[in-house]
Amino acid sequence: MKHLLSTADLSRADAVHVLDTAAEMAATQSREIKKLPTLRGRTVVNLFFEDSTRTRISFETAAKRLSADVINFSAKGSSVSKGESLKDTALTLQAMGADAVVCRHQASGAPHLLAHAGWLDAAVVNAGDGTHQHPTQALLDAFTLRRHLVGGAQGPTAGSGSDLAGLHVAVVGDVLHSRVARSNVSLLTTLGARVTLVAPPTLVPVGVEAWPCDVSYDFDGTLADGKPDAVMMLRVQRERMSGGGGFFPSPLEYSRAYGLDARRLATLPDHAIVMHPGPMNRGLEISADAADSPRAVIVEQVANGVAVRMAVLYLLLEGNR
Amino acid sequence: MKHLLSTADLSRADAVHVLDTAAEMAATQSREIKKLPTLRGRTVVNLFFEDSTRTRISFETAAKRLSADVINFSAKGSSVSKGESLKDTALTLQAMGADAVVCRHQASGAPHLLAHAGWLDAAVVNAGDGTHQHPTQALLDAFTLRRHLVGGAQGPTAGSGSDLAGLHVAVVGDVLHSRVARSNVSLLTTLGARVTLVAPPTLVPVGVEAWPCDVSYDFDGTLADGKPDAVMMLRVQRERMSGGGGFFPSPLEYSRAYGLDARRLATLPDHAIVMHPGPMNRGLEISADAADSPRAVIVEQVANGVAVRMAVLYLLLEGNR
Amino acid sequence: MKHLLSTADLSRADAVHVLDTAAEMAATQSREIKKLPTLRGRTVVNLFFEDSTRTRISFETAAKRLSADVINFSAKGSSVSKGESLKDTALTLQAMGADAVVCRHQASGAPHLLAHAGWLDAAVVNAGDGTHQHPTQALLDAFTLRRHLVGGAQGPTAGSGSDLAGLHVAVVGDVLHSRVARSNVSLLTTLGARVTLVAPPTLVPVGVEAWPCDVSYDFDGTLADGKPDAVMMLRVQRERMSGGGGFFPSPLEYSRAYGLDARRLATLPDHAIVMHPGPMNRGLEISADAADSPRAVIVEQVANGVAVRMAVLYLLLEGNR
Repeated sequence: MKHLLSTADLSRADAVHVLDTAAEMAATQSREIKKLPTLRGRTVVNLFFEDSTRTRISFETAAKRLSADVINFSAKGSSVSKGESLKDTALTLQAMGADAVVCRHQASGAPHLLAHAGWLDAAVVNAGDGTHQHPTQALLDAFTLRRHLVGGAQGPTAGSGSDLAGLHVAVVGDVLHSRVARSNVSLLTTLGARVTLVAPPTLVPVGVEAWPCDVSYDFDGTLADGKPDAVMMLRVQRERMSGGGGFFPSPLEYSRAYGLDARRLATLPDHAIVMHPGPMNRGLEISADAADSPRAVIVEQVANGVAVRMAVLYLLLEGNR
Repeated sequence: MKHLLSTADLSRADAVHVLDTAAEMAATQSREIKKLPTLRGRTVVNLFFEDSTRTRISFETAAKRLSADVINFSAKGSSVSKGESLKDTALTLQAMGADAVVCRHQASGAPHLLAHAGWLDAAVVNAGDGTHQHPTQALLDAFTLRRHLVGGAQGPTAGSGSDLAGLHVAVVGDVLHSRVARSNVSLLTTLGARVTLVAPPTLVPVGVEAWPCDVSYDFDGTLADGKPDAVMMLRVQRERMSGGGGFFPSPLEYSRAYGLDARRLATLPDHAIVMHPGPMNRGLEISADAADSPRAVIVEQVANGVAVRMAVLYLLLEGNR
Repeated sequence: MKHLLSTADLSRADAVHVLDTAAEMAATQSREIKKLPTLRGRTVVNLFFEDSTRTRISFETAAKRLSADVINFSAKGSSVSKGESLKDTALTLQAMGADAVVCRHQASGAPHLLAHAGWLDAAVVNAGDGTHQHPTQALLDAFTLRRHLVGGAQGPTAGSGSDLAGLHVAVVGDVLHSRVARSNVSLLTTLGARVTLVAPPTLVPVGVEAWPCDVSYDFDGTLADGKPDAVMMLRVQRERMSGGGGFFPSPLEYSRAYGLDARRLATLPDHAIVMHPGPMNRGLEISADAADSPRAVIVEQVANGVAVRMAVLYLLLEGNR
C-alpha cells in the first residue's frame, strides 16, 4: 500500500491487515506511556482545504503518538486562496520533505490527483474528498464492528473469524451527499457484511442499483425485517435542508421518518450497536436517548479512529520496507 | 487536586503547594536546556472557544517544556460552530486520549461542566470562563507578589513566611466584567492578603458586599490611605466603552479617575509593585511611563505564567500518583 | 550574527558561511532520519502579522528538523488585533522564553524594531517585512544559484569558487513592491553576481539608480544582449493590478511584455535556470511550460529554503557560542 485513497482499492486481505495493525496500536494506547518512536523524524502534513477539526486532531494525535512531526496546513488564508494550483501546493510539500500528506478537499478526486500526478513521493491519505470517499472513517467503523460483533462470545458471528461475514449493517440518512456511506459500502461488503442503505428517495444517488448493497426508503421496515446488527446514522448537513426545492425533507419530517429514537432503538436485536461518524445533530438524525444509550458506540468510534489512523500512517510509511 | 477550575476551591495549603512547585519549575527554566521529560507521552488539548493567543501560547509553552504533546483546538470553524454540543466535544476529546484539557470559554461555568459531568477522565484547567474565574492568572499574580514582596530582605513581610499575610493589594478597574478580579480576590485573601477593589460605581458587581474584600470608588483615596503594596490594574475592554447607556465612563473620564499615571505612581510606597494581566491599553488604564517604570512587574508576570502553568499541569497529571 | 534582518547586513564571508552551513544541513536531509537534536529545548516562535503559509511551514519544518519546539503566533484574532503594541507583544515573547522569533510583518522595519529596541534577547529572523527585505528568500536563491551554476562541471563559473562571481541574474517584474528583489540585489551583488532588474517603468522604485545593479524596461533586450545565467521571475500581486490609476499594466499587457513564456525561454543560454519565489501565477508572470520546463528550479528553491532556514536558526542560536 503506497496511498490510502478509497476503500474500493482495498482487498479483503489489505483491509484485515489494517484492522489487525490497528488492534495492535489500540493495545499500545492502554499503556502508561502511549508514545511510540516508530515515525520519529518523519513529517506528516495535514493539508486541509475544508475545516474539519475532529478529523484533523485525530490524525494529528495519531501522528504524534508515533513521534512524527506534524505540520498543519489550512488552505484558508494561504497561497492556495491566492490562486495557487493544487500542483504547486503539492510540489511545495514534496520539496519540504513531507513523508505523508493527509488531504481533506471539497472536490471529489483531489487526493487521487495528489497521489497519482507524479508531483509527490509522499504517501497520500484521503481524509475526505467531496462526496466521494473517507476511507479512514470506514476503517474505524469496520474496526468498531469487529470489536463488538465478531469473534467474541456474543453476537451473530461469535468466534467465526476476522472479517465481518454474516453481519447486516443499515446505513441511514443522506446517502446522496455522504462519502462515509460510499466508503462503508465498499469496505463492509469487501469484508463480507451485508449493507442496506436507508434514505429518502430524493437522497439516494443515481446509479445506486449497481452498488453491492440493498436500498430501502423505509427505516421501520428495514428494522423489522432486516434485523440489522448495527445501525449507522449519517450526519445531516443542516445547511442542505434550507437549500429548498423540495429536495430535502423538513427537519421534522426527516426526524420522524429517518431519525433513530427510543422507539426504533427498542426494535433492534439485543446485540445490535448504534454508530454515528460525528458530530451528531441530537434531536435530528438521532435522539439524545439513542445517542447516550448503552448500545451507542459513538465515542469508541472516535477512540478507534486514532488507532486506525496510527495503523494507516505506520503501514504507509514503514510497512512497505 | 484533579482539576483547576476556581481559586475558590484552593485551600491555603493547596495554593502554597502550587506556588512552591512553580518556584521549582521557574528554577529549571534558567538552565541551559529548559525541557523536562516529565509529561512525555501525555496529550494536552487547548480547547479555546474564545481567542486568546497569550493564554494559549503560555499553556502551549508550559506543556512543551514538560515534553507533552499539544493539540490546539480552536472552536472557530470546528464542528462546535456547526452546533456540536459541549458534551459531544468532551466525549470526543476523551476518546482521543486527552490527558488534560485547558478550556477557555465565553460562558461562565463551562469548564466546571466539562470537569464534573462525567464526560472526561482528563484533568480540566479553566483558562478563563466568562466573567467567572481565571485561576492560573491569579496564581501567577500570587507567585509574582510572593517573589517581590515576601520573604526577602525588603518589603512589609520580609522574612515572614510563604503566604501573602500582611500584604495589601488594590485591584483597579472594571471589576464587574473581570474574571481576573474574582480569581484574585479569593486566592489572595486565602493566602492572607487584604484586597481593595477600586472601580467606578457602575462597574462593581451586585453582591460585592459579601466578598472578602473592601470596595472603593476613589482611587486616589485608596492610594493615600491604604498604602497598597501592589496595584493591579485591570484591562479595559474598549468594546464595552462604546456599549453606551451611561454604564461605562468615557475613555477620558475613566483614565482620569481610574488610570495609573506618573502622578499616582509617585504616591506608592517605595517597595510597591505595579501589575497588569495584559494586554495593556497604554494611555487608558495605565500610562506608558507607569507601564515601563521599574515598579512594573508586568513582563515578569508573563514569565511566571509559564512556570505556574507548568506547575499546574505537572500537579494535575503527575502529582496525584 | 545575532539577528538576520537584511541581506544588506551580510558581508561576503557571512553569506558564504550561511550557504556552506545550509549545504551541510541539506546533506543531513537526504539521510534516513532527518531529525537533528541540535536545538532541543529551544523555542522558536513564528510571529506572523501577515498570512504566509509557505514561509511559516518552511520555518516550522526547519525548526522541527532541529528538534526545537515551535509556537505559531498568528496576529489575527490575537491581542495584537485588540490593539496591543509591538513592544508589548515582544516583551511577552521574551518573558515566555522565546529563543528565536521569526517575524513576518506588513510594515517595513518591524523586525528591526523587534531586534534593536531592547525588548527581546531572542534572535530575530526577518521573514518578510513590507516592501523591504526577505533575507532567507534571497539566501535560498543564492544557494540555488550556487548549486546549479557554480563550481560544477557546467556553467560559466565552473570550478571557480564559492561565491557567485561572474554570474548574471535578471530579476523580472514588480520590483517596486518586491522585498524579494531588494534582498536579492544586495545579497547577489555582495556575492559577486551582476544583477539586472527588468520591470515596467511604473514599477521601478524611486532611487533605483543608486542600487548596485542595472535597470531595464525591455525584457527581450535583456535576454538578447545580457545572456543571463538565471532569470528570476517575481510574483505579481493580482490585487495590485485592479488598483487602477494606470499604475499597473493589464494582465495581458504585463504577460506579453514581462512574462516568461516558451519563446523567451528558448532564447536563454543552455545552462541558464529559471527561478520563482512562489506561489506562481501560471499564465501571468510565467507560462505553464516555462514553470514546468527542466530549466525551472522552482521546486528545488523550496527544498533549499528548509536547508537555509535550518542553517540560519542553527547559526543564530548555536553559532555564536
